[in-house]
Amino acid sequence: MAGNSIGELFRVTTFGESHGVALGCIVDGVPPGIPLTEADLQHDLDRRRPGTSRYTTQRREPDSVRILSGVFEGVTTGTPIGLLIENTDQRSQDYGEIKDLFRPGHADYTYQQKYGLRDYRGGGRSSARETAMRVAAGAIAKKYLQQQFGIQVRGYLSQMGDIRCELKDWDQIEQNPFFCPDADRLEALDELMRELRKAGDSVGAKVTVVADAVPVGLGEPVFDRLDADLAHALMSINAVKGVEIGDGFAVVNKRGSENRDEITPEGFLSNHAGGILGGISSGQQVIANIALKPTSSITIPGRTINKQGEAVEMITRGRHDPCVGIRAVPIAEAMMAIVLMDHLMRNRAQCNDVKSDVPRW
Amino acid sequence: MAGNSIGELFRVTTFGESHGVALGCIVDGVPPGIPLTEADLQHDLDRRRPGTSRYTTQRREPDSVRILSGVFEGVTTGTPIGLLIENTDQRSQDYGEIKDLFRPGHADYTYQQKYGLRDYRGGGRSSARETAMRVAAGAIAKKYLQQQFGIQVRGYLSQMGDIRCELKDWDQIEQNPFFCPDADRLEALDELMRELRKAGDSVGAKVTVVADAVPVGLGEPVFDRLDADLAHALMSINAVKGVEIGDGFAVVNKRGSENRDEITPEGFLSNHAGGILGGISSGQQVIANIALKPTSSITIPGRTINKQGEAVEMITRGRHDPCVGIRAVPIAEAMMAIVLMDHLMRNRAQCNDVKSDVPRW
Amino acid sequence: MAGNSIGELFRVTTFGESHGVALGCIVDGVPPGIPLTEADLQHDLDRRRPGTSRYTTQRREPDSVRILSGVFEGVTTGTPIGLLIENTDQRSQDYGEIKDLFRPGHADYTYQQKYGLRDYRGGGRSSARETAMRVAAGAIAKKYLQQQFGIQVRGYLSQMGDIRCELKDWDQIEQNPFFCPDADRLEALDELMRELRKAGDSVGAKVTVVADAVPVGLGEPVFDRLDADLAHALMSINAVKGVEIGDGFAVVNKRGSENRDEITPEGFLSNHAGGILGGISSGQQVIANIALKPTSSITIPGRTINKQGEAVEMITRGRHDPCVGIRAVPIAEAMMAIVLMDHLMRNRAQCNDVKSDVPRW
Amino acid sequence: MAGNSIGELFRVTTFGESHGVALGCIVDGVPPGIPLTEADLQHDLDRRRPGTSRYTTQRREPDSVRILSGVFEGVTTGTPIGLLIENTDQRSQDYGEIKDLFRPGHADYTYQQKYGLRDYRGGGRSSARETAMRVAAGAIAKKYLQQQFGIQVRGYLSQMGDIRCELKDWDQIEQNPFFCPDADRLEALDELMRELRKAGDSVGAKVTVVADAVPVGLGEPVFDRLDADLAHALMSINAVKGVEIGDGFAVVNKRGSENRDEITPEGFLSNHAGGILGGISSGQQVIANIALKPTSSITIPGRTINKQGEAVEMITRGRHDPCVGIRAVPIAEAMMAIVLMDHLMRNRAQCNDVKSDVPRW
Repeated sequence: MAGNSIGELFRVTTFGESHGVALGCIVDGVPPGIPLTEADLQHDLDRRRPGTSRYTTQRREPDSVRILSGVFEGVTTGTPIGLLIENTDQRSQDYGEIKDLFRPGHADYTYQQKYGLRDYRGGGRSSARETAMRVAAGAIAKKYLQQQFGIQVRGYLSQMGDIRCELKDWDQIEQNPFFCPDADRLEALDELMRELRKAGDSVGAKVTVVADAVPVGLGEPVFDRLDADLAHALMSINAVKGVEIGDGFAVVNKRGSENRDEITPEGFLSNHAGGILGGISSGQQVIANIALKPTSSITIPGRTINKQGEAVEMITRGRHDPCVGIRAVPIAEAMMAIVLMDHLMRNRAQCNDVKSDVPRW
Repeated sequence: MAGNSIGELFRVTTFGESHGVALGCIVDGVPPGIPLTEADLQHDLDRRRPGTSRYTTQRREPDSVRILSGVFEGVTTGTPIGLLIENTDQRSQDYGEIKDLFRPGHADYTYQQKYGLRDYRGGGRSSARETAMRVAAGAIAKKYLQQQFGIQVRGYLSQMGDIRCELKDWDQIEQNPFFCPDADRLEALDELMRELRKAGDSVGAKVTVVADAVPVGLGEPVFDRLDADLAHALMSINAVKGVEIGDGFAVVNKRGSENRDEITPEGFLSNHAGGILGGISSGQQVIANIALKPTSSITIPGRTINKQGEAVEMITRGRHDPCVGIRAVPIAEAMMAIVLMDHLMRNRAQCNDVKSDVPRW
Repeated sequence: MAGNSIGELFRVTTFGESHGVALGCIVDGVPPGIPLTEADLQHDLDRRRPGTSRYTTQRREPDSVRILSGVFEGVTTGTPIGLLIENTDQRSQDYGEIKDLFRPGHADYTYQQKYGLRDYRGGGRSSARETAMRVAAGAIAKKYLQQQFGIQVRGYLSQMGDIRCELKDWDQIEQNPFFCPDADRLEALDELMRELRKAGDSVGAKVTVVADAVPVGLGEPVFDRLDADLAHALMSINAVKGVEIGDGFAVVNKRGSENRDEITPEGFLSNHAGGILGGISSGQQVIANIALKPTSSITIPGRTINKQGEAVEMITRGRHDPCVGIRAVPIAEAMMAIVLMDHLMRNRAQCNDVKSDVPRW
Repeated sequence: MAGNSIGELFRVTTFGESHGVALGCIVDGVPPGIPLTEADLQHDLDRRRPGTSRYTTQRREPDSVRILSGVFEGVTTGTPIGLLIENTDQRSQDYGEIKDLFRPGHADYTYQQKYGLRDYRGGGRSSARETAMRVAAGAIAKKYLQQQFGIQVRGYLSQMGDIRCELKDWDQIEQNPFFCPDADRLEALDELMRELRKAGDSVGAKVTVVADAVPVGLGEPVFDRLDADLAHALMSINAVKGVEIGDGFAVVNKRGSENRDEITPEGFLSNHAGGILGGISSGQQVIANIALKPTSSITIPGRTINKQGEAVEMITRGRHDPCVGIRAVPIAEAMMAIVLMDHLMRNRAQCNDVKSDVPRW
């Protein structure tokens, strides 16, 4: 099937280019009867929006989303929800000079070779601007999960360059432009950002996403495991190069005796597994990490070729984030919420009648 | 959709429990006209097969695969290929004692809670025995990719516990029971395995998979990116807790100026991206790493509960690998081959007419 | 998967209610490099558009479609095409009185029971207004099929009430408001329509769709046969109650000796099969018929109940077609084009390398 | 996606050729906890089985089905159910002479052209023998629907040639080899069959399928309507050329005032719609008709060509039914049951929380 959809039962399909007329998406499969307004979506869109701090691109987009269908008298009807964000600050002239060359580390080359042509304005479809629609769609999932099941999906910046940010305080996250849960790291982050701006360079990041109150039983073995679907959804975010569930790559040099999560009548004693066993949620916190590469949109000159295959040197002008990982936090939350929502519906379809006397915590 | 299928156009659906009657799968969408025999599949099955060395479980299964359909006069017909492996060495009596309790670190608890019951014999459907069918299906993809496009998919053990194995020699891999590409590490690996056996413990591992000669253009942005689909496929392998494409988590503390892969008229200067840009293959090697947890099937006693919620202590008897990562090598190859095959067909469907004068290497 | 998409590789997903803000759709999987403008879509939209003759509803919608993405510099890019039609002539006040009751023969009752609520304005999502987006999406398929393969998909009104219209002249179809291919029937049709208007009643119709120059080989046995997918697509059109391929129900009392289409070195001698054998196109004309029920939106009073379960009598006010079958012609063409396009891509994915010396005509 | 699967949540994938090693299928998505034995499946298989009366092919296959997975201790586990029927009476020698020619009215020509080769033995994959697996899979759906919801899916022969069979008595159906509900027609049917045998000819048929006690609310507008999915499933049966829901093609010359099903506080007054409004079940009987063509496997010589394109005359030897419509009854039941099961699960996924005070009957 064509590649712009995600989810089976809660199904999100997006369209739109960075500098096209508009971005849009269709969210199909939303349960009926859920109160929903544009404001519900705007909150997360504003968290992702460019131009909100000096650390992100200065492109100024209000990113105002309109609900075009699927909501009647303030409540979802069960029919597909059409969403639209019109592009306003497009400044295509910024991009004329990259029309005929391939920015290294970007999708310019691969789009050109796959499709035989490309919309070069701001990366066209390959721009992370597309993720605005994911955030809007994810907000619908988040609202349903929270309201019907008390499930909360939250993310934070867990590392930027060498600076690690521990989860000290969830509340801190919304109070700084880094989504950093550790106030003691803010100064260091600010310093790194200023250094990068000066150097015209960028840096990678790690983002952690956590879902609380996920019921046991979500995930469809064998292939559509909850962890496999999370890996798919998170790896589909622009610039992501790695995905971990629970302890992730740290398990490589662990022993079974330390890594297994023992169980007592009061519950699990640890959560190395990140809340997923055999592809199915265990009722613990679901935890995932993603690694985001440093953007290649930097002002340090780099070598590349043009369409004729000639060597050229280029720098990326335009408006770019020195660390794209920051704004990835609401995107990663959205993707996890979409996956959980989809699996909640899938589980309900097949296992609706299941009852169990076995303890859950 | 139900969760036991992978791939859209090259579609693999598996069934079977560890100690059931048989394992089977249907491979749908295979192009017609490909010479194919059971021997083509058996080679990789034998590489994954238990009981082949003293480092793996002593369960002895010939794992003889039969082709039941889709091949006529030695050639694929384009119709679905049914594959079957009958279980022979089932020894269900080994598992009577775990009938009513939940092995920590296994899917026992989550299956019980999701489905309200479970086939407890050897983990039932959650056993890695299911992966035999993935290997068989993957062998079909591998054969087609190799024969029609010269694409080669190979994997190796890149780390076990603290022992790192560098890719020194592809030929070495088939000459030792660890799929280790560095002969200098064999002794250390052997020693670790013996130590684990003695301690009744297990250890994690990292496996690397590489595809050569992948053409530029495979992968469907936005959601069905090649990297996202690889992440899905690889994370769906039992015990995998992390997936990396190219440099993976190492990008977190890299700068854009060092991480971007510059391009010259002679080709890319590096491959930090692992052969994928914007979700589309770049024509470079496609490289992925996976982290496999240490199996929880160990003989060191651990705490858990039974169905009544009472605390019990247990050890896992039966026949288990101290490092499940070893046998994951052919499985990971199979999953990568399936994903590449699927995307090759998808790309052909949409972009069959595309011609490009831009250099490819 | 959620139900508002059709096609696997050429995938159309629609949204929008009759009296909502807008109708929209995403066409995913369009091959790159196809010249495409809004005018290409507008032609068929105008053929379907209400208010164009005195025989159709007097709702006046310009149905101007905008392309929001996926086309760059006049050419498709391979990325999803977002389409939008804003609703302008909504007159919701017409519908206040049906808010609390269920029009017989409409989806009011079933939507209410399925979703627990409904957008009652003009039928909401169940209105045939949704088909405008199908027509727009179908126009993309039609253009590609025509341009790349010379495939032409055309439909006509083959029966209305007792009046049968034979395919005498394809050119005639665009010259009368009935899509009738037989000029001799126009007077009778006009008379029937006037009679229906007077009586406040409606009548059923049969529409025939034909595709010329379809290559042999399209269709995926066993379930995704070309005929099965056509049946799905055509039955999904509002008011359709029957689908026939080729001779359809006339085969029931035929003998094998008269119904089989014999073959000679010059080609098939007949086409009872409607161009499909074993679910695969034979290279002959693909022919399908659909039966459309008389709309239940009539001014003759009818019995129904309200939300409280009380008996009420109602008439349908508002603006309605006495024969919805007429405007179904471009819709049916669109659906056949979408299915052919999808199967053309699917066939290319799997059977791209197939060569055959066997004659085709 | 490859074409050998049907259903989204209750998903059936089949494999196997008429004269291959075996037929098989995987039924994925079956709810856990349902008692299921091979005998449950065998009943319907025996109803479809060849060689049971003198009116059907004399191929003698026991069609004994084995359950290979997904059932543990007599109960479904929620994991995929693998089913297998080994072919025993294959007599491939019967088919040597059709190796190089294309039987008119069969899929020989289209398979050859699509795939470049074909398994010519008994039609290979295009043989209706494949439908045995549909019947087995459908029996699982039937059991669940009956047991959990009291839904009963039954079919009958409603016409053969010119002989119409009215639904006089459901019990009669299992008491004659024609699935005929009218004992008064048995003699005429027998006579027609004998006449056909003598003439070496075949005849078409109409089959009606009815589901009782279907709850209101099944079906996903817009494309995945219950009627559209039924049309897909039923048209995918070999030899089917037409599908009707409710009154079907009879609506063409009906008026809206007679065709709409009025509603009273006691329920609907009629069921012209066949139990589906707007693509969603209304709570009434779901009724569908299918038209089956007369098989082209007859002994009256017919013209065709061979692989070299030369004219040849041929007759079909081997063992064939003079009316394939008879044995289509259990197949059609199976397909309707699969579709209802799938939609029941889909409806549960999205609309599980919906409550309604509006009367249902």
